[in-house]
Amino acid sequence: MLAPPLRQQSLGAGRVSQPPSRRRTPNPNPVCHNAAAQGCDPPSPTGLQATQESPHVYTREEVRSHSSPETRIWVTLGCEVFDVTEFVDLHPGGPSKLMLAAGGPLEPFWALYAVHNQPHVREMLAQYKIGELSPEDKVPSTLKTSDPYIDDPVRHPALKVNSQRPFNAEPPPELLTENYITPNPIFFTRNHLPVPNLDPETYRLHVVGPPGGQSLCLSLDDLYKFPKHEITVTLQCAGNRRSEMTQFKEVRGLEWNIGAISTARWAGARLCDVLAKAGHQLCETEAHVCFEGLDSDPTGTAYGASIPLARAMDPEAEVLLAYEMNGQPLPRDHGFPVRVVVPGVVGARHVKWLGKVSVEPEESYSHWQRRDYKGFSPSVDWDTVDFDSAPSIQELPVQSAITEPKDGETVQSGEVTIKGYAWSGGGRAVVRVDVSLDGGLTWHVAELDGEEQRPRKAWAWRLWQLQAPVPAGRKELNIVCKAVDDSYNVQPDTVAPIWNLRGVLSNAWHRVHVHVAP
Amino acid sequence: MLAPPLRQQSLGAGRVSQPPSRRRTPNPNPVCHNAAAQGCDPPSPTGLQATQESPHVYTREEVRSHSSPETRIWVTLGCEVFDVTEFVDLHPGGPSKLMLAAGGPLEPFWALYAVHNQPHVREMLAQYKIGELSPEDKVPSTLKTSDPYIDDPVRHPALKVNSQRPFNAEPPPELLTENYITPNPIFFTRNHLPVPNLDPETYRLHVVGPPGGQSLCLSLDDLYKFPKHEITVTLQCAGNRRSEMTQFKEVRGLEWNIGAISTARWAGARLCDVLAKAGHQLCETEAHVCFEGLDSDPTGTAYGASIPLARAMDPEAEVLLAYEMNGQPLPRDHGFPVRVVVPGVVGARHVKWLGKVSVEPEESYSHWQRRDYKGFSPSVDWDTVDFDSAPSIQELPVQSAITEPKDGETVQSGEVTIKGYAWSGGGRAVVRVDVSLDGGLTWHVAELDGEEQRPRKAWAWRLWQLQAPVPAGRKELNIVCKAVDDSYNVQPDTVAPIWNLRGVLSNAWHRVHVHVAP
Repeated sequence: MLAPPLRQQSLGAGRVSQPPSRRRTPNPNPVCHNAAAQGCDPPSPTGLQATQESPHVYTREEVRSHSSPETRIWVTLGCEVFDVTEFVDLHPGGPSKLMLAAGGPLEPFWALYAVHNQPHVREMLAQYKIGELSPEDKVPSTLKTSDPYIDDPVRHPALKVNSQRPFNAEPPPELLTENYITPNPIFFTRNHLPVPNLDPETYRLHVVGPPGGQSLCLSLDDLYKFPKHEITVTLQCAGNRRSEMTQFKEVRGLEWNIGAISTARWAGARLCDVLAKAGHQLCETEAHVCFEGLDSDPTGTAYGASIPLARAMDPEAEVLLAYEMNGQPLPRDHGFPVRVVVPGVVGARHVKWLGKVSVEPEESYSHWQRRDYKGFSPSVDWDTVDFDSAPSIQELPVQSAITEPKDGETVQSGEVTIKGYAWSGGGRAVVRVDVSLDGGLTWHVAELDGEEQRPRKAWAWRLWQLQAPVPAGRKELNIVCKAVDDSYNVQPDTVAPIWNLRGVLSNAWHRVHVHVAP
Repeated sequence: MLAPPLRQQSLGAGRVSQPPSRRRTPNPNPVCHNAAAQGCDPPSPTGLQATQESPHVYTREEVRSHSSPETRIWVTLGCEVFDVTEFVDLHPGGPSKLMLAAGGPLEPFWALYAVHNQPHVREMLAQYKIGELSPEDKVPSTLKTSDPYIDDPVRHPALKVNSQRPFNAEPPPELLTENYITPNPIFFTRNHLPVPNLDPETYRLHVVGPPGGQSLCLSLDDLYKFPKHEITVTLQCAGNRRSEMTQFKEVRGLEWNIGAISTARWAGARLCDVLAKAGHQLCETEAHVCFEGLDSDPTGTAYGASIPLARAMDPEAEVLLAYEMNGQPLPRDHGFPVRVVVPGVVGARHVKWLGKVSVEPEESYSHWQRRDYKGFSPSVDWDTVDFDSAPSIQELPVQSAITEPKDGETVQSGEVTIKGYAWSGGGRAVVRVDVSLDGGLTWHVAELDGEEQRPRKAWAWRLWQLQAPVPAGRKELNIVCKAVDDSYNVQPDTVAPIWNLRGVLSNAWHRVHVHVAP
């Protein structure tokens, strides 16, 4: 399902309040509605100039300052500015979804949810038009500087940014589980370095051959010649839900909420096919496949990571050199033109902008393999940590979180709907999600949605939901979820005993506290 | 290490108290010391009749009644009876180990711990002799009845029996982690039915061939012709630690303590080789290998279980048709002459007294596959349970427990030594065990012992220990352990949220409360 169902009854003009400013004739064909993020074409003769009044003109800055009910809620589509304050509560997808666009352009959201691309939606919106963008705001400024991040791509405004440089951002909870497949523009992004700007024509992947063998230098066209393999895989950052660990005790790391996890349909060549072509075979002794990215820091050090050769060579493990994400070439933020996808394994090993693959007797010597992305006891601090004493994170433990309702929200009495995601590493399927409304004293079993899981290859998450009666007289609910995978591993009850100095592997029960409307 | 280290200094005669009754000349060669369990030869001329006194004579019943410091502590060796009350605290292996034999024969324990078979040990024991067994007690009675369990084998007296018929028993905690390899006589035993008495000469294993193929009928000699494969594997019953669930809320099942887990070196033919010989191949659709035991109930229903074909056919999964356990033919209680060993998988699938192997499109239809050995939410009771809604347990979750000190014990102030085991299913290695002395507020990292683990094939447990200072002034300790596996799965904090109506999968933190000596 790519869009929330339209509740048609709430779309009737009779139920829509009048916009606060003058009402216009609905315009069935507004112009340049896909251009806002890149700047704006001049209004077409068939556009909103049908009435002869000269439109009010606003700057983007002015629009941005109207992003709450107090200041009124403005949005733009193409060059046009709309005050949708009165429409927010009537939005068929829910007020919170529309509020994600408050103060900015609608296009990035409409691009995600195709249901908006219908004449009656545009007609309705036209009623709220209050003016147009000022001419100088139609072309965004892209001043060149010496900033190494200057070439980073433009991002979707719905992303909650945890760090601009390098760019790290997650979709908000209300969008995260809106679709089983996460749309590319809001797929969580975890970059360690500036995004390289690679030319697909000259791109080459260097695959080091075995001793005495032949190395490969593969163009994109060469890679396309391998059998194309397509799978649905959930990626999760080791730091997902780190913010909950921070609440217990300070850690070093980005403050990820519950959104450092997303799911896409990936296509590419199987790593085992490429390695075999280079002459590699499984060997008796433990070996590792090392990946190097084409992103690098000012000293020229590239991002790197490795996985065991046994996983890389196992056709059933389905490790990909992916060049497509949800039917599109990889977006730049996700590794264009080629990234590694290692199903069931922590995001850090899915090396983006892949430049080099080699087979080594040891794990990658990169910082991110040896001095990061490892778990430690709560007793270990930065004075006592011995990174060599812990294995690098590969498969991740069982995980789940609540995406609806949100912490602090007020829910209606009667019945509450709770939604979320659940996933486990290593291809282990989620077999059950338990949900509690009383902090874990009693439990309900949630309904699992999403695609059927293949045995031993449950690479993608399950979305889940529960409709449960709110016990009469309750003023608040302590909602908790916990998942079980097919090895019957469960999530720990609390975060303190799994706290670690880097704040990784945060998979305690997810807890949301809500108020019940009287 | 097969025996506790001897602390020689505590063995000197000068430090040994006098026995309560008359002291005898040490006898370097006592007779029939391996015969007590089977009855007793007459004393030899070189035996304890060296002094001409006529020995006191006791019945086994009388000996049994002397099993505590209050009644004094008697043991037998061959036909001789000893009062070892004064020696218990001097026992080099610790008082609790000797107390396991209190009121009964020493032979079963000495057979496990070969260090006892030395002249100076026998000399020391001779000092405590108080008499001999009465003649009628030298031959145990084995009255035949119509009891289907009448042919069950004789068991080791150290086993803690949870059910006699069928026989279910576990080693006591103080013996459980004494050795990395559990000695056969105290390996935990989980039988569902009477133990069949099979003739190795006429034994045949029926392997059903694929459609249109050839079935096999294998004698033991046929099985020996397959390449012999030998691996160390820990077996754990799904009901291990069930007694902790019962403490929270009643369940249906045997009251296992922490000992329904043991480790052996298994040898046999690989199942994949036998299946290949019968013409089986991996198929695209999911299939299952069904096992049938030669044990059966009065209606003729045999014990049965199944595992996925993918696991059975994977050479790396090392599934065995085992005919040796720690270098010996399988003991009758453990499946003589052939059992299945499925590394990393719940004990219930390791079918004993194996009679038949077949490949089926569905899981085994046996009660134990479909109506038992499954996990459910705490909210599910016997009125609401839907066995089809949960997957059969295959791989088990991460587990650990404390074997020393025991709950309720008094430990010395200064330093405490804590020991235990840790294991995870699916070949996942245990990478860390955290131990707390304060109920989980602060943690220490334990030292892992035991064999090196192979990547992805960590089929056997790790034993662990921690020496930790007892914080000054503490009157009691709440000792807790929790393990982490290489997918960074952890144990849940508490048992209530994983409680289930059958009491399986009990893997919350293990907790032991001890007093500190003033």
